[in-house]
Amino acid sequence: MREFSGDHRFLSINTATLRKQADLVGIIDACARAEIPAISPWRDQVAAVGLDRAARAVKDAGLALSGYCRGGMFSADPERLAEARDDNRRALDEAVTLGAPCLVLVVGGLPQFSRPGSRPSRDIAAARAMVEDGIGALLDYARGAQMPLAIEPLHPVYAADRACVNTLAHALDLCDRLDPDRRGGLGIALDVYHVWWDPELSAQIARAGADRLLAYHVCDWLVPTRDLLNDRGMMGDGVIALRQIRSEVEAAGYQGFVEVEIFSEDWWGQPMNQVLETCIARYRSVV
Amino acid sequence: MREFSGDHRFLSINTATLRKQADLVGIIDACARAEIPAISPWRDQVAAVGLDRAARAVKDAGLALSGYCRGGMFSADPERLAEARDDNRRALDEAVTLGAPCLVLVVGGLPQFSRPGSRPSRDIAAARAMVEDGIGALLDYARGAQMPLAIEPLHPVYAADRACVNTLAHALDLCDRLDPDRRGGLGIALDVYHVWWDPELSAQIARAGADRLLAYHVCDWLVPTRDLLNDRGMMGDGVIALRQIRSEVEAAGYQGFVEVEIFSEDWWGQPMNQVLETCIARYRSVV
Repeated sequence: MREFSGDHRFLSINTATLRKQADLVGIIDACARAEIPAISPWRDQVAAVGLDRAARAVKDAGLALSGYCRGGMFSADPERLAEARDDNRRALDEAVTLGAPCLVLVVGGLPQFSRPGSRPSRDIAAARAMVEDGIGALLDYARGAQMPLAIEPLHPVYAADRACVNTLAHALDLCDRLDPDRRGGLGIALDVYHVWWDPELSAQIARAGADRLLAYHVCDWLVPTRDLLNDRGMMGDGVIALRQIRSEVEAAGYQGFVEVEIFSEDWWGQPMNQVLETCIARYRSVV
Repeated sequence: MREFSGDHRFLSINTATLRKQADLVGIIDACARAEIPAISPWRDQVAAVGLDRAARAVKDAGLALSGYCRGGMFSADPERLAEARDDNRRALDEAVTLGAPCLVLVVGGLPQFSRPGSRPSRDIAAARAMVEDGIGALLDYARGAQMPLAIEPLHPVYAADRACVNTLAHALDLCDRLDPDRRGGLGIALDVYHVWWDPELSAQIARAGADRLLAYHVCDWLVPTRDLLNDRGMMGDGVIALRQIRSEVEAAGYQGFVEVEIFSEDWWGQPMNQVLETCIARYRSVV
């Protein structure tokens, strides 16, 4: 297991962590000043400053990327599937322009939430089938662009509205069906917030292996959690066995960035540099 | 699949659904007037009116029970395990006095939440081991009293603080390890709220079979869910494929009551008879 106490050379900041403090260029500047080597930006933050300006700011700051958030939302009415396809291709092209190592996929839940305007459905199995089809179609395009796709299983609390792939086992089953020969270009983004509770987590991390582990995200699970979306915790403030999970991820071969992604009204209310200092301190002490 | 549209002879009301409108005796009276044949009471509601009075009220009203809520919270510091054991034996004795068909078990999460005062821990595997030991020990006592134990897997959102058994597969694994010869007396309580998202649900319901399916609870999952604890939906108001799941439960052999359990500030604010009328109408039309 890598030693993190002495520096923060594997730290990445998911820019949603600071989305209310600054625009993407401001976040990039702050990360560079804090000698944080990598970020993972969100599409809306890139769009707000312009793709070319965002790409130039990343390059000028000498930052690496640990991912690009996000493609997905594959479940939709049939007449909206072309919209979903085109939207995902644009996301993928942006990831290429930015130099991201992978496009993170939040796959979508039931179609009426995944692509609003779609007809209401309670058929989660049908949504899962659409997700599989959608990833399969995007994979061809992604391979042409040499941009890996990282399926992110989300916590089951988001099954209806955000992602109907809710366990690492399910995400890896999709990978195995869509890439049975492990040609590469398809894997998972593992976020401890979504998977820490899973009794199969250790076994599935080992099953994933280095070639499927494309990204690793950390934050913490607070008790009580006061809001389903925006009450994630800073590492160390909750109940997730962070060092245990990282040891398993690294034992499986992962040696990439550890990306801090915290959606939190509390942390969005703190000064940007204080959040970054806390991320660095916790990365060194508890991640 | 049983036809529910013509009457409500398999309907049971979990009394937590009406906990803010009346005490247990008042709920029993209202259910009897609505010709609801069964209830499932909570320990605190029984204690508030007295065990003997509760048992007499149930009997005088001619009601059946579909369960008794609840035992569990097995995870604790070693010096608190005796407290947990004694507490669970009392719950079991109460279930016997009330004539319940099973004692529902909410198994507990991390020890500091399961039995407050226990030392903080992030070791969910250790909590799961304590839960298994605790159920095993209680099972001997329960068999002596001929009172079946029904393990209720809770939604993963409650893994830290309420129950670290979060999938039907995990609950059935516990049953198989603690009762390998299927002697009986150990099974599961299946609540759609907790398991609807699970891609393995259908397979695990079939695996459970009639002898492990001791209780079946319904409500609905609302989008958005505004509160993790008390924003459950009335059947039909959310996204759960209720008829699909009941068809699978019945195909596995379950023929018992369908118990409505809704924790909801919204429904707690409605008049009791209106809630019961709505439960009956939805039971007939969408369950």
